[in-house]
Amino acid sequence: MGDYHTLNQGEVVEYARGIEGVFPVGAQLKSREIGDGNLNLVFQISDPASGQGLILKQALPYVKVVGESVPLALDRVRIEIEALRIQGELCPDLTPKVYAYEPDLALVVMEDLSDHITLRRGLIKRGRYPLFAGHIGSFLARMLFFTSDLAMDLQEKKLRVKAFINPELCNITEDLIFDAPYKKSRMNIFEPHIRDAVERIWADTELHLEVALLREKFLTKAEALLHGDFHTDNIFIKPDSAKVIDPEFAFYGPMGFDIGTVIANLLLNYSGQEGLGPDAQERIDYRRYLLDTLRDLWTQFELQFRELWNGHAADRMAKTRGYQDLYVARLLQDTIGFAGAVMVCRVHGFIHVADIDHIEDVAARERAQRIALEIGAALIKRNRSARSIEEVLDIALQAVN
Amino acid sequence: MGDYHTLNQGEVVEYARGIEGVFPVGAQLKSREIGDGNLNLVFQISDPASGQGLILKQALPYVKVVGESVPLALDRVRIEIEALRIQGELCPDLTPKVYAYEPDLALVVMEDLSDHITLRRGLIKRGRYPLFAGHIGSFLARMLFFTSDLAMDLQEKKLRVKAFINPELCNITEDLIFDAPYKKSRMNIFEPHIRDAVERIWADTELHLEVALLREKFLTKAEALLHGDFHTDNIFIKPDSAKVIDPEFAFYGPMGFDIGTVIANLLLNYSGQEGLGPDAQERIDYRRYLLDTLRDLWTQFELQFRELWNGHAADRMAKTRGYQDLYVARLLQDTIGFAGAVMVCRVHGFIHVADIDHIEDVAARERAQRIALEIGAALIKRNRSARSIEEVLDIALQAVN
Repeated sequence: MGDYHTLNQGEVVEYARGIEGVFPVGAQLKSREIGDGNLNLVFQISDPASGQGLILKQALPYVKVVGESVPLALDRVRIEIEALRIQGELCPDLTPKVYAYEPDLALVVMEDLSDHITLRRGLIKRGRYPLFAGHIGSFLARMLFFTSDLAMDLQEKKLRVKAFINPELCNITEDLIFDAPYKKSRMNIFEPHIRDAVERIWADTELHLEVALLREKFLTKAEALLHGDFHTDNIFIKPDSAKVIDPEFAFYGPMGFDIGTVIANLLLNYSGQEGLGPDAQERIDYRRYLLDTLRDLWTQFELQFRELWNGHAADRMAKTRGYQDLYVARLLQDTIGFAGAVMVCRVHGFIHVADIDHIEDVAARERAQRIALEIGAALIKRNRSARSIEEVLDIALQAVN
Repeated sequence: MGDYHTLNQGEVVEYARGIEGVFPVGAQLKSREIGDGNLNLVFQISDPASGQGLILKQALPYVKVVGESVPLALDRVRIEIEALRIQGELCPDLTPKVYAYEPDLALVVMEDLSDHITLRRGLIKRGRYPLFAGHIGSFLARMLFFTSDLAMDLQEKKLRVKAFINPELCNITEDLIFDAPYKKSRMNIFEPHIRDAVERIWADTELHLEVALLREKFLTKAEALLHGDFHTDNIFIKPDSAKVIDPEFAFYGPMGFDIGTVIANLLLNYSGQEGLGPDAQERIDYRRYLLDTLRDLWTQFELQFRELWNGHAADRMAKTRGYQDLYVARLLQDTIGFAGAVMVCRVHGFIHVADIDHIEDVAARERAQRIALEIGAALIKRNRSARSIEEVLDIALQAVN
């Protein structure tokens, strides 16, 4: 990494100009820093005249929010690029195009997705995306199935596990999702009005045991190549399209973590509906839409995962009678547990979600926070006994009644 | 590996002579090939005058039993050496000394253990080793605990998982233990008189489901650094000492696989007692000794594993109330399942055990084979519901009544 330096806007524009086949010769390029992440510089380079654009993303060698004091290996850009390559092969329509990759600069040049918005923004605006469950259900089924031992040569899969060993980014998840929220920690950020609920979580040993078991799965279960950070800011959407970005947290882990992260983010928005105006019916309707979407997502995932298994399982043992049913049943349980853990950490942990934090009315924000904590904890406690996705819906409905 | 060539006896002797501090200057060294493995050349170099000796082990780049047609990466010697280094740090008394390692030649020079015999030979001779359960119980507890997420820095552990990715040797286990024995395959070798029992195993779908689940754990559960081939030929023993050799199959896998492999080999000898002469009381007594040893092994393991956990768990989450009990309970279940799988494959699979194969009387050999298959299949079927090591003893007793 001897040649690494952070690029300034001028360098970024010149670099973008050099990408072939995007901008007309002599175009007047505009550059804008659009990153809201904590780990990367992100620039959008556009040519207003032709409407063409590009995204340049440069990894920072430290965690931005806390200054330069926490170094972070630039190897994550290699991991992101390799994960995007696999993603592009398995789900081309759902993957942004990559135009260039400069390992020395930890720089990636990608398709501009300005015609999409993040799913989080879409949900906050109460958008409806009838194709979302099919798109993302299919994405999850294909990515998780085809990178697992069910579909891969077992020895190739081991080499892939090796290539995606990702200690530093996994460490972030291990701390922020599976540890800090369950103890008094300066990594927790929350408003005083929910201190009683947070303290109940710190004291709930039944909950802690389930979290320890989920965390153990995250640490040890090399089941499939995960996106690793599959929240709704990393899904870009418009009515007829979805794109999954930013797999820099990719590693071999338990499938349920990715599915659970998407579901958690739907339920965080569901909790946040407390803040969206006084119209009760509109709130009820949108929550109904979110729960239907959640159910459809799981149903689409399960349907396609089973179809892939029936049609493409490479491993003879995968055809063992009863194995698929048991596998899918455990996968649902993992999904529910991880969904709960992701929800809890986004309420009083280090990184919140706009779906709740953007609520201006304090009382409504507090209600949303309590609903999210209640659903999250209930999902975590239910995980090992869950039998159906309907239980998630029941838990969500109960929390707002 | 450009400098690799297989050494002849003359080269071996000259190499051994160059190891400092072992042989007197001008010693008349004797060389003997003693390998009974399929993957390596093993030479014992000794000086009868001084009584000093050394072992030189050179990995072959192909599987010996089937000629040069199956190439096998010499990287396994690096894995063996790195595993021996960790083993030597954690269990110095149970680890052979390593004098030299030549990566280019895939050559290791080790302590001569001629004053020990293999535990398999010891058991076949009806030896009793009162210290064995303590030694190996402690070995398993220390190796499995200290290489796991319970004791290691979580990020260091991931780098170690990476260093021990071992596709080719895991592939051997995946095929020979978890696949071939459950289907008609040229990798199965058995005498016609047990065909009916073997065919029942090929047709037993309840058994196949359990094997698929165990195999999935072997493929995905990166819990601790395993020896990976912990049978009784890889334990050298004398009354006051035990040494664990040959960790070339080492990889990060489920702890229960190592513990189960030792237990399986005790039970294979238990099955083989059918052949040891007509004296019924002697047979009953030795079987009692083997079952007591098996129980002691688990008990010692569990005791020390829990002590290490209570005293040395690095991970805060490891202290979660109830977690240790649940962890140990699942570990026992894994152990029982893997023990069963290892037993079954050693009866009609590709590699048998002398404990049974050496029985000269055909009827006694057949009885031994059937007992081993019965115990093995019963352990596999019991694994997910097992609660106590006593269940293993009950299954073993029932199979000979």
